[in-house]
Amino acid sequence: MSDQIKIVQKEGITLVVSGPSGVGKNSVITALRERYNDIRHSVSVTTRAPRAGEIDGVHYYFRTKDEFERLIAEGEILEYDIYCDEYYGTPKSPLERMRDEGINVLLDLTVTGALSLKNSYPNAVLVFLIPPSEAALKERLFHRATESEEVIQTRMEEAWEEMNSAFEFDYLVMNDDLLQAVRDIEAIYWAEKHRTSRLFIDGTQ
Amino acid sequence: MSDQIKIVQKEGITLVVSGPSGVGKNSVITALRERYNDIRHSVSVTTRAPRAGEIDGVHYYFRTKDEFERLIAEGEILEYDIYCDEYYGTPKSPLERMRDEGINVLLDLTVTGALSLKNSYPNAVLVFLIPPSEAALKERLFHRATESEEVIQTRMEEAWEEMNSAFEFDYLVMNDDLLQAVRDIEAIYWAEKHRTSRLFIDGTQ
Repeated sequence: MSDQIKIVQKEGITLVVSGPSGVGKNSVITALRERYNDIRHSVSVTTRAPRAGEIDGVHYYFRTKDEFERLIAEGEILEYDIYCDEYYGTPKSPLERMRDEGINVLLDLTVTGALSLKNSYPNAVLVFLIPPSEAALKERLFHRATESEEVIQTRMEEAWEEMNSAFEFDYLVMNDDLLQAVRDIEAIYWAEKHRTSRLFIDGTQ
Repeated sequence: MSDQIKIVQKEGITLVVSGPSGVGKNSVITALRERYNDIRHSVSVTTRAPRAGEIDGVHYYFRTKDEFERLIAEGEILEYDIYCDEYYGTPKSPLERMRDEGINVLLDLTVTGALSLKNSYPNAVLVFLIPPSEAALKERLFHRATESEEVIQTRMEEAWEEMNSAFEFDYLVMNDDLLQAVRDIEAIYWAEKHRTSRLFIDGTQ
């Protein structure tokens, strides 16, 4: 008889990284994905047409608008957004399957999307990235956009508005230095692996 | 006008490391204290006599039994234990002062002590150390004790009983390899510094 005690993760971690537009979320997510091989990403559902080389179920689940709307009605979409007249959403079943199999998943969501996911999954871990300054946010929005100053100003106001949701998240991380932000999220991910609510002890009895 | 955004810790972290007798808590605490200079330790109150070189307010607050009992009655003792007929406890005021000044504090408490502290401070971060096996726990109790096999057996049962409280803690850390346990707690401490509930953003308005 072995009396080894094992700590077992009974539920996968759903790690959500979000923040206002222009905070540099994509660079952080890309760096996190390169660093971890024990965390999967969630495949989104979209109604936009596949681009060359995109595979259904790998890059996205490609669905028609009718199908997408049926999925919403059936409660199969945890959160969604409309962008350029196309739906983008997070499907419920694959995420629940991974969570129940103890697989950790990294999600890249908008602020609104992150908060609506938290409603369904109170155990999800929500990280809010904040910019080091208003100027840094503006600069990133400028660099990205080809639109007029006026459009950028509107986006800037929207992004600033999103900052008000920061305190509905679990953790705040400043994205000033990319490596520092990634290391902060790494510590959060590591710590969450030890959270009692997701574990059980095997071998005490 | 600077538009720098600052994340400010409005409340110090109260980090409690605990676990059953024989789990090797002291080595972990000592290693943590050597690693961090931004975390203070809490000075306990005791009724035992000072040993040579011990300074009141540094090593312990030395009090008489009458004084200690008055502190208990006044709600000034957050948790206490009686060991070899002497009181040992955690005083409330210095801990609250440090927390309110944003100072992070590391506390070394018994399982019961940790749980009663959590009652007063729901924001305290409780880490439970678990042994890698029943044999490891027994070995440590044996090494330490000069008592009979029977006494050790009783201690062993008490320690095992304490394992049942593990899930009332926030985090579980296995103390198999000391360095690994210390690094796990380091990640927890680091992550907790980013927890929204302890922060505010300076500069958004």
